[in-house]
Amino acid sequence: DDGDPAVGRKKALQCQACHGMDGIAKIPEAANLAGQSTIYLTSALTAYKTGERKNDMMSTIAPTLSDADIADLASYYASIEITAKVPGH
Amino acid sequence: DDGDPAVGRKKALQCQACHGMDGIAKIPEAANLAGQSTIYLTSALTAYKTGERKNDMMSTIAPTLSDADIADLASYYASIEITAKVPGH
Repeated sequence: DDGDPAVGRKKALQCQACHGMDGIAKIPEAANLAGQSTIYLTSALTAYKTGERKNDMMSTIAPTLSDADIADLASYYASIEITAKVPGH
Repeated sequence: DDGDPAVGRKKALQCQACHGMDGIAKIPEAANLAGQSTIYLTSALTAYKTGERKNDMMSTIAPTLSDADIADLASYYASIEITAKVPGH
């Protein structure tokens, strides 16, 4: 189902220490989530939830998320607009 | 070892169809790589290389990459400057 970015933003409060409210990673081990597609975010979060992907932090957090939480979080981070500039180009 | 972003940029020509030369995903299944940390990029690419992470596309490509390729690609995509704007904030 399509998540709700406003609800996702509230749920993202538990993610911000590593991923930031702006979706830019705050620690080098964490991924930037800003502007990733809902398809990518949902598949990555679900992979951590099912154990298909393993990570010390995410393997403890993802299993606590419902599919609705995942949809809301995905829609929040996907809603963040990003720009990219290749240095010198 | 620290990769060379200029060399990585040449090697990224094989990645651009899905990940873009600017590191912004061109297909929804692919991740944005722009501005991800070298630590994150190296660990994700190595996970696809060793099979710890599985993906139809990446599991065929990553095993062809040497550690030097991975370091160069990681340093290239990490060198891309990104900005993130949360809509309405």
